[in-house]
Amino acid sequence: MSREQRAQVDAMLRQPRRAGPRSVEELRAGFRALMAGMSVPDTIRTSPTTLGGRPALRVEPEHEPRAGAILYFHGGGFVFGSPETALSLTGHLVARTGLTAHSVDYRLAPEHPFPAAIEDTLRAYRDLLDRGTDPSALAFAGDSAGGGLAVTTCLAARDAGLPLPAAVLAFSPGLDATRTGESMETKEGIDPVFTRAALEHTGAMYLAGADPRQPLLSPAVLADLTGFPPLLIQVGSNEILLDDATRLAARARAAGVDVILDVTADVPHVFQAFAGRLDEADEALDRAALFLTQRVRTGRPALAQ
Amino acid sequence: MSREQRAQVDAMLRQPRRAGPRSVEELRAGFRALMAGMSVPDTIRTSPTTLGGRPALRVEPEHEPRAGAILYFHGGGFVFGSPETALSLTGHLVARTGLTAHSVDYRLAPEHPFPAAIEDTLRAYRDLLDRGTDPSALAFAGDSAGGGLAVTTCLAARDAGLPLPAAVLAFSPGLDATRTGESMETKEGIDPVFTRAALEHTGAMYLAGADPRQPLLSPAVLADLTGFPPLLIQVGSNEILLDDATRLAARARAAGVDVILDVTADVPHVFQAFAGRLDEADEALDRAALFLTQRVRTGRPALAQ
Repeated sequence: MSREQRAQVDAMLRQPRRAGPRSVEELRAGFRALMAGMSVPDTIRTSPTTLGGRPALRVEPEHEPRAGAILYFHGGGFVFGSPETALSLTGHLVARTGLTAHSVDYRLAPEHPFPAAIEDTLRAYRDLLDRGTDPSALAFAGDSAGGGLAVTTCLAARDAGLPLPAAVLAFSPGLDATRTGESMETKEGIDPVFTRAALEHTGAMYLAGADPRQPLLSPAVLADLTGFPPLLIQVGSNEILLDDATRLAARARAAGVDVILDVTADVPHVFQAFAGRLDEADEALDRAALFLTQRVRTGRPALAQ
Repeated sequence: MSREQRAQVDAMLRQPRRAGPRSVEELRAGFRALMAGMSVPDTIRTSPTTLGGRPALRVEPEHEPRAGAILYFHGGGFVFGSPETALSLTGHLVARTGLTAHSVDYRLAPEHPFPAAIEDTLRAYRDLLDRGTDPSALAFAGDSAGGGLAVTTCLAARDAGLPLPAAVLAFSPGLDATRTGESMETKEGIDPVFTRAALEHTGAMYLAGADPRQPLLSPAVLADLTGFPPLLIQVGSNEILLDDATRLAARARAAGVDVILDVTADVPHVFQAFAGRLDEADEALDRAALFLTQRVRTGRPALAQ
């Protein structure tokens, strides 16, 4: 059954698209439409809020939230996406863990290139700390570009002398703006979602001329992860971003960090969004939820409101 | 707390030992004494049985076993150990999953060198299949040398044209009789349990002159894992066997196998045996149990008796 599901999802994503790069507005609208089709658990409730001066979406379990929280960073190549487009992923994590999530609407390129996104996510984290959140009861999580932000925001927090969160969870993270992973070549044409050209199209808007050779842009190549909290990376084997994940995991191991590299074969980028349609998605979310509940310490005061 | 626990376990294992290699009888008695100190859940029951012509230990949950089984292979460098020395590990998996385990007392070196152990484990698997066990409701699991056997028995089963089990779980597996992993050098002195000399002492008894360059002795270096079921490898970052795990995971990814490489920092070889004393041990066992229950299909006829 599941091999069939994997093939169906792959074929769906492999639909022919108009050739050539799309405009920013087309990218944003197309992503909104794609993600609007993803399942959202009906056991959560959402409310608009602000965090670090940016809009954010608070996602809570409908009943009996447990102490602890997730600071969530949506995907979309730093150019598109929002807390709403990531609501399936955030919601499934909230529903499975009982934790409350704060999903940050960080500024996007090309209007706001690097390092605007990381400035916003770091401010959101500072805001939670200032409101009394216990970092040992908080995890960073994100998908795609937001998975990258989960890692780089943690780097930036460490380098700013802030206490670190209890865990970092990244779904198919983008971790290398130098685009030097072997999978950039070996998975081209196998990856049903991305091509190098597509990544470079949005990547250039985010870089806006910045040197990609810096840890906050290419942590899989350049970051020293010493002192990092436990890390779970989930990725599909067909992704051109596969080696962003494998190389970050190797750097984490070298730095003495607890790290789980969880690779599922023949599934696309951020396959967890296909929860309800793809068994591997639900199973991966269950593993992610166990990781979060193991790391986010309970028995402490609940997150400040 | 947990960092303290990791340091305590490390110090305990780092006790000075008599210099020089020990006799086979000393190795066997010392390992029995060490493992007799490990916790065994009181919610399981054991009974002697036979499997493929070898003695085996059946380990069941005291109440309400679920459909499905684990074929377990104990550790001990192919020279020492038994289903009894692995009872802590097997018992904790059984208690957490509700599955029934069959732990094989395969023949040991030097009396019975390679490939005696794999002959016995493969016969045990054939015996289960012959008795009507559904392979999709069965996982292979093992620790250390037995983690290696979980992998190589699956290789041998595939090459014999047998159906494959639903999953393979390996705790700190030994997967390279050529001893060429970088961690053989970089973790020497850091690993509180093993030295290269100690591994080569027992390894030579198992090899008995056989060429280590063959997939059933060095799967991390030589095996093609095409067609393998999902694989979970757990290993400590301080182990000289670390790169046995990392290289097998890389081979699994390359072969299109679902693979989770779960590395815990600063814990010793087969740290899961410290359940009850080391939080990381219990947490790793919980992750292993989730993996097994996700892979071992339920809703099918229970394992044949």
